Amino acid sequence: MSRWAPGARERLEMAALQLYDQHGYEQTTTTQIAERAGLAQRTFFRHFTDKREVLFGGAGRLREFLVEGVEAAPAAVAPLEAVIGALSAAREVLPAERELSRQRGRIIAANPELQEREQIKLSSLSAALSGSLRGRGVPDRVARLAAEAGIAVFKVAYERWLDEPEDEDFAHLVRESLHELRAVTSMLVVSPIEGPHAG
Amino acid sequence: MSRWAPGARERLEMAALQLYDQHGYEQTTTTQIAERAGLAQRTFFRHFTDKREVLFGGAGRLREFLVEGVEAAPAAVAPLEAVIGALSAAREVLPAERELSRQRGRIIAANPELQEREQIKLSSLSAALSGSLRGRGVPDRVARLAAEAGIAVFKVAYERWLDEPEDEDFAHLVRESLHELRAVTSMLVVSPIEGPHAG
Repeated sequence: MSRWAPGARERLEMAALQLYDQHGYEQTTTTQIAERAGLAQRTFFRHFTDKREVLFGGAGRLREFLVEGVEAAPAAVAPLEAVIGALSAAREVLPAERELSRQRGRIIAANPELQEREQIKLSSLSAALSGSLRGRGVPDRVARLAAEAGIAVFKVAYERWLDEPEDEDFAHLVRESLHELRAVTSMLVVSPIEGPHAG
Repeated sequence: MSRWAPGARERLEMAALQLYDQHGYEQTTTTQIAERAGLAQRTFFRHFTDKREVLFGGAGRLREFLVEGVEAAPAAVAPLEAVIGALSAAREVLPAERELSRQRGRIIAANPELQEREQIKLSSLSAALSGSLRGRGVPDRVARLAAEAGIAVFKVAYERWLDEPEDEDFAHLVRESLHELRAVTSMLVVSPIEGPHAG
């Protein structure tokens, strides 16, 4: 097969997920991943800097997708609406097989260093989204709050998507999670210091 | 002076901040920090595992303070209100001298590894808050969304507190930031799929 065979990257990702899930992340080497994928080890390093990054290639695709989505939203659309619109379409950049995402979730849950990496990727996703919003002329604080709110909605929707027995419509889960967030923010009793007429 | 002199920890923190800010985080050694604080290097290692953790001792105090605040809130208080109530009182666990927090902010901003550590501390703060809320009987998703919303509010309020020329009332900044978050979540135009009568 050609060294640049289409799908090499995807095959490496799937091989890595299988090995990490079966034998543990720590125990797996890049040599074993390449072997399982039927590729040379140097092909592995053409696609990934190390075995950790195999788990986070999807985060890069998601980020690009969401940033483009926010940028493409019509000018009249509210900041959080732009973010939610992009998130609602994100199913298409998640793996076609939901079991792969579940496998990945199990591997990350078993390793504190990977959990930290996942949190960092989500933080940088939030930073990228607030950057896109600022690019639309949204004031800095509003941009940051809308991005953080969007990521909170995404986290909750994504975990439900992994957990639900049926492959539920991702956009629907995003919207439900948004409604929950709005309930959470609006159920707040106005504190006496602010008074009922404030803000 | 006694090896357990009161304030050793604080003196080490202040010495570290000065050195990191003046000479760079990378360039500073634990020997230099102990020297500047007038303490033995072994005293440094009684208080901190390494030079990075000197910057994040405050994160531990903040976390404990917020968790206790949420736990102490009356049962009738809404989840986000419990979080905001705790955040509003958080000025007392921030350094008395705001310049120390600014110094810390500059040091972290100059170093990607420290920025990542800061993000991880904020994520674990969110996880701790949602744990406290679950302990109050709040359902899991609501707990997570309220914790994430609270951390978003805190981030924005904290940065304003650092940036504003006057040492503005922290509780006031928290409340303003909460109002902004509510505006962000409510300005969302309901999408046609949900319909105007949904949720």
